Amino acid sequence: MTKNTKVNAAILIIGNEILSGRTQDTNTVTLATWLNSIGVKVNEVRVIPDVEKTIIDTLNVLRKENNYVFTTGGIGPTHDDITASSVSKAFNLKYEIHKEAFKILEEYYQPGEFNEGRQKMVWMPKNAELIINPTSGAPGFSVDNVFCLPGVPSILKSMLGGLKNKIVGGKPILSHTISLKTVESEIANSLTKVQDQNKDIEIGSYPFFHAGKLGVSIVIRSEDQIKIEICSNQILEFVKKKKIEIVDR
Amino acid sequence: MTKNTKVNAAILIIGNEILSGRTQDTNTVTLATWLNSIGVKVNEVRVIPDVEKTIIDTLNVLRKENNYVFTTGGIGPTHDDITASSVSKAFNLKYEIHKEAFKILEEYYQPGEFNEGRQKMVWMPKNAELIINPTSGAPGFSVDNVFCLPGVPSILKSMLGGLKNKIVGGKPILSHTISLKTVESEIANSLTKVQDQNKDIEIGSYPFFHAGKLGVSIVIRSEDQIKIEICSNQILEFVKKKKIEIVDR
Repeated sequence: MTKNTKVNAAILIIGNEILSGRTQDTNTVTLATWLNSIGVKVNEVRVIPDVEKTIIDTLNVLRKENNYVFTTGGIGPTHDDITASSVSKAFNLKYEIHKEAFKILEEYYQPGEFNEGRQKMVWMPKNAELIINPTSGAPGFSVDNVFCLPGVPSILKSMLGGLKNKIVGGKPILSHTISLKTVESEIANSLTKVQDQNKDIEIGSYPFFHAGKLGVSIVIRSEDQIKIEICSNQILEFVKKKKIEIVDR
Repeated sequence: MTKNTKVNAAILIIGNEILSGRTQDTNTVTLATWLNSIGVKVNEVRVIPDVEKTIIDTLNVLRKENNYVFTTGGIGPTHDDITASSVSKAFNLKYEIHKEAFKILEEYYQPGEFNEGRQKMVWMPKNAELIINPTSGAPGFSVDNVFCLPGVPSILKSMLGGLKNKIVGGKPILSHTISLKTVESEIANSLTKVQDQNKDIEIGSYPFFHAGKLGVSIVIRSEDQIKIEICSNQILEFVKKKKIEIVDR
């Protein structure tokens, strides 16, 4: 296992609809923002199709290289929902009816509504831990360090609260943004010098074109608030010298 | 090389800002939609940080497994723009000033404006082919089957036109959507039967909650219009039997 000392994760988006361009993925932003806030750094994101071998192979790489893996999609009732059976195979676990999940859905639906289609959603890897779904009943699940969530963004969001006690993060990653009325080439050299003096700080430079304004947002990220402030002051120093205007964004 | 008979591609999104959740990637939808329209199937998408070793290693995997690789991000003038130098290393090519790109930017900018920061954008792998940028001057480039595009969505979009003659696709992938006022569990079994009878057709089922409407979109995808129609008729047959309402979406 090649795990960093920091706590890290991979996000695995499962679904043909993202690869065809039909659906705009928004779960990455949701998960990444939440993970950063609890001190888990996202190392990589992969989007893969609803193909069993691909899911198994990718999962078996990612779960060894990261402290946590979060999958989205493929846990509904239709034929293209194959995440739970694929996870079972990746871990060499039996794919079976999860008794607790069965009880939850039996109570959730009106009598007679818990039909064969819906019952597919309680098939999971043996001994999976449930992730409660406050929106639409059908739970997600986790096996070891792999957490399987649904693809529908509103349902996924509602399930993160239930994950809090299961994910142990490091120090939260803090960030500070300075937005400037300038272009990147004006500040590139000065910014390189600041980065060279602060090698353990992540400094990103992002041009923006927004509501008629053109500018650059500099984003400083670190777990250490004091280091962010030192870095920020060095940036503000050259900004002042160059007489560049600071703007809101 | 494990290339399918079909023409396929990988998309490689390079940028810490996507992994931190700060920026919503929209380039995947843009590229995937365009690639599908010209008969190139997107096999996978990866999002990775601005880390040289990661870029090189990932690129060297993806370019062997796919007919084409499209990268976005990291070709601007600042210290965190390391895509061009990393691509050079991945291909063991010299990283040098591209004379044609230099000329383009020398003409693009006013006298005196083509400063050191901007000149960084003409450093590329030796003998790279340029991808013209009608929006903001600085070209993208390609080496072998790897096409490097910028991260800013509006600029990326404007550069796709110039790529048309460089990408040889297969048959365009067609799709047909049937949206129903139902829930997935109602149609799951019938849809599985249709999928079993049409194994070479991709059928996806996507629940939606939109403007107060709750329903399911069934998406049928294939290169063969007739096969799509046969499959569509089989779906409409069970929809009629079950008295499910067809809705617009």
